[in-house]
Amino acid sequence: MFELILHGTVTSAKGFLAGAVHAGIKSSDSTDLAILYSQSPCVAAAVFTTNKVKAAPVILSQEHLSTAQAQAIAANSGCANACTGQQGAADALEMANLAAQKLNLEPEDVLIASTGVIGTPLPMDCIKGGIEQIKLRQNGGHAFARAIMTTDTTPKEIGARVSFEGKSFSIGGALKGSGMIHPDLATMLCFISTDARVDAAFLQASLRKAADISFNMATIDGDTSTNDSVFLLANGMAGNRIINFDNGEAFQEALNEVCIRLAMAMVRDGEGANRLMEVTVDGATTQVEARRAARTVAGATLVKTALHGGNPNWGRIAAALGRSGVEMALDKLDIYVNNTLVMKQGSPVFCNQEEMRITLLTRDTAIARICLNLGDGKATAWGCDLSEEYVTLNSEDIT
Amino acid sequence: MFELILHGTVTSAKGFLAGAVHAGIKSSDSTDLAILYSQSPCVAAAVFTTNKVKAAPVILSQEHLSTAQAQAIAANSGCANACTGQQGAADALEMANLAAQKLNLEPEDVLIASTGVIGTPLPMDCIKGGIEQIKLRQNGGHAFARAIMTTDTTPKEIGARVSFEGKSFSIGGALKGSGMIHPDLATMLCFISTDARVDAAFLQASLRKAADISFNMATIDGDTSTNDSVFLLANGMAGNRIINFDNGEAFQEALNEVCIRLAMAMVRDGEGANRLMEVTVDGATTQVEARRAARTVAGATLVKTALHGGNPNWGRIAAALGRSGVEMALDKLDIYVNNTLVMKQGSPVFCNQEEMRITLLTRDTAIARICLNLGDGKATAWGCDLSEEYVTLNSEDIT
Repeated sequence: MFELILHGTVTSAKGFLAGAVHAGIKSSDSTDLAILYSQSPCVAAAVFTTNKVKAAPVILSQEHLSTAQAQAIAANSGCANACTGQQGAADALEMANLAAQKLNLEPEDVLIASTGVIGTPLPMDCIKGGIEQIKLRQNGGHAFARAIMTTDTTPKEIGARVSFEGKSFSIGGALKGSGMIHPDLATMLCFISTDARVDAAFLQASLRKAADISFNMATIDGDTSTNDSVFLLANGMAGNRIINFDNGEAFQEALNEVCIRLAMAMVRDGEGANRLMEVTVDGATTQVEARRAARTVAGATLVKTALHGGNPNWGRIAAALGRSGVEMALDKLDIYVNNTLVMKQGSPVFCNQEEMRITLLTRDTAIARICLNLGDGKATAWGCDLSEEYVTLNSEDIT
Repeated sequence: MFELILHGTVTSAKGFLAGAVHAGIKSSDSTDLAILYSQSPCVAAAVFTTNKVKAAPVILSQEHLSTAQAQAIAANSGCANACTGQQGAADALEMANLAAQKLNLEPEDVLIASTGVIGTPLPMDCIKGGIEQIKLRQNGGHAFARAIMTTDTTPKEIGARVSFEGKSFSIGGALKGSGMIHPDLATMLCFISTDARVDAAFLQASLRKAADISFNMATIDGDTSTNDSVFLLANGMAGNRIINFDNGEAFQEALNEVCIRLAMAMVRDGEGANRLMEVTVDGATTQVEARRAARTVAGATLVKTALHGGNPNWGRIAAALGRSGVEMALDKLDIYVNNTLVMKQGSPVFCNQEEMRITLLTRDTAIARICLNLGDGKATAWGCDLSEEYVTLNSEDIT
C-alpha cells in the first residue's frame, strides 16, 4: 500500500537534506553541484553502469560502498570525470574528501557522481568553492534535482509514502537522464532516499530488482554511459520494524513504482523525443525472453522512426521481434498498437491507418502489446521516438 | 590473383544471361522484375536472413537449395511477399513455376527473391505477365541490378577476373541494399555468379566465410530484414579443375573482395547516409571479440551522429567499446580517427579538432582504428552516419 506524494522529491523522506549551487563547472549560470545528506547514517545500495569504461566517480563510489553504509552523496553536472586517468581518480577522491570535511563525515561515508563532458579534468577549484557554499535544507530536493540536469528539459522527481505495519515510511527520488553535453554521452544518475529501516542485503537486492524492471528496460539510443549510477540510501528514521526478505513486499512494490516512474520520465524527456512508447510482451516462453523481445522492439531504429511519423507499423515490430532471437511462431503472433489489433496470427489485420496515425501523433504515449502466445513470460520496456532533432542535437560540432 | 573488371556485373561470368521488365509491381515506371539465368546447371549456395520472421521466397529458396543445384533466379522489387501466410507461400511457388516454365527448367532449379512492401500479397498477374516478357541477354546484368533496386540511389555491381592454374574464371555480383519502401524494411539482396567449377560444399562454405567478413560486418540501422538473401551460382563453364577446400584460396580471396566491395557500396548508399565509416579493431583477445567490438562501434547511434557532424569523438567510440562486452583494459586502449591518434592508453590526446572536423566532413570515408593491445584478434566493420534525412525518410506516413 503506497500513495504518491504531491511534489514529492529526494528530500521527502525524514532526515534527508539537500542543497545546490552554481559552482562554475557549467558555462551557463545554472546550478551544477549538489549534495544529498542524511541526518543519520544510512544503509546504502547502488547499481552502476555495466560499461567497462567506468568513470572515476563510479569506481570511487563502488569502493566506498563496500561497507554498505553512507551518509551523503555529492554530485556535479558539467564534467563527467571520465577517461581522466590517475588525475581523475585523485580528483574523485578529493571531491569526496571535501564533502566529508564540510559535513563532518568520514570520506568513506560520502558517495559521488558526475555527469557531463568526458575526457576533461574536474575543475577542482569550482568543486572546492562550490561545496563550501552549499546550504543544506529540508526542502532542498528540488534544487538537487535541478542541479544534476544536463540537457534534460525538466527535473525528474518523485516521492511515495508507504503504509507498513501501522506506521509509514517514505521513498523519494531524483533523476537526470539522457541529456548530452557534447562531446559526451547521455548519463543516467538516480538518487533515491528512504527513511525506512532496511536490512542492507535486502536493500541491495530490492534496488537490483527494481532497476531490472525500470532503468534496465528503458532505452533511448541503445548506449550505456560510463557514469550511469543509481543510489539508494535508507536512514531508518521512520522507526519501522526492520524490512528484510521476509516482510519486504510493500517496500519492493513502492520502490518498483518509484523507479518505473522515474525511468518513464527519463525516456519521455529523451533527447529529441516527442512521445513515449511502452512495449509489453506477453506469452513468451520465459521472462528472460520477454525482456529481450520488449527491449529489442523498444530500441529498434525502424520502430522508433515509425513512431515518430505516427506509423502503426506492425511489420517493423514483427521484424524487430524476429531478430531479437526469442522463441516465436509467426502463426501465433498477435500485435496490438494502442489496443487495436494490427496483426493476428502472423497476418495483417485491416484497420483504419489514418485514424491510428492521428492517435499516435496526438497522444504523448503509444502502447504496443505483443502476444507471442507460447508461455507465461511477460515484460515491459520503454522507448521513445527517434526524431530529426535527436540527430541534430547529437551531430553538433564540438567547437 | 584477381583483377576487377571494368563495368563488371552479374553477367560478367561466362554463360550467365539476365533481363528485366517493368511488370507493374511498383507504382513508378521503373523495372521491378528480373531473371538471372545460366546456360548450364549450376552448383548453388546461399545465406539467408537470421530473422525468425522469414518471407515466403526465403523459405521456398531454402527448400529448392536442398540439392545445392539451381540454374536461375527470379527476383522482384516492390513487394516482399512477407507476412503473407499460406497465400504468400503459394505465390512464391507459383513465381518459381512460372520462371521454370519460361526457361524450360524444373521448378526446383529456380530460386526466387522479393523485396518491398510487407504484408501485401504478390500481384501475381504482374509477375505472370512480366516473366513472359523478360528477354535474357548476355549483357543484361546492368538491367538486373537496376530492377532489384528499391530506394537505393545507385545500382551496385561488380565483376572480378581470377587467374587460376593457367586459366581464368570470373565472379560477378549485383546487390540491392537498404532502401526502404514504406511501410517496410530495408532488405539486402545479393546475387553472385561465377563460371568457375566449384565443389558444392566448398561453395557454400566459401560464401558463408565471405558473407561473415562483409555483409555480416555491415550495419546501417541495426535491423535485419525478413528477406535478406545472398545467392551464389557457379556454372563451371570456365572449364577449370574443380575448386575445393584444397585449392580454393584464390577463389575465396576474390569472392571476399567481391562481397566486401558490394557491402561497402551498400553501406555508402544507406538511407540518408553521407559517408562511410570503416571501423577496424585489432589487438582483441580473439577474432570473435574483435568482430563484436567493431560491429558495436560501427552501429552505435552516438558514433553515427558524431560522424554526421564531423565530430572525431573518441569518447563515444570508447563508450561503445565499453558496452560491447569485449575484454578490454582502458589503460591499453589506443584510438585513431583518420590515422590521427585521439586516445592513447585510455587518455585523450590533444589534437586539432577543427582540422579533424573538416577532414571528416569533406571525405566520403572515415576510418576509425581501435587498438585494444591485448591479443591478435582483428576485424573490420562498416557503418555510415545517421542523418536527419534517415529519420525523415523512415518517419514518413504511409498514406
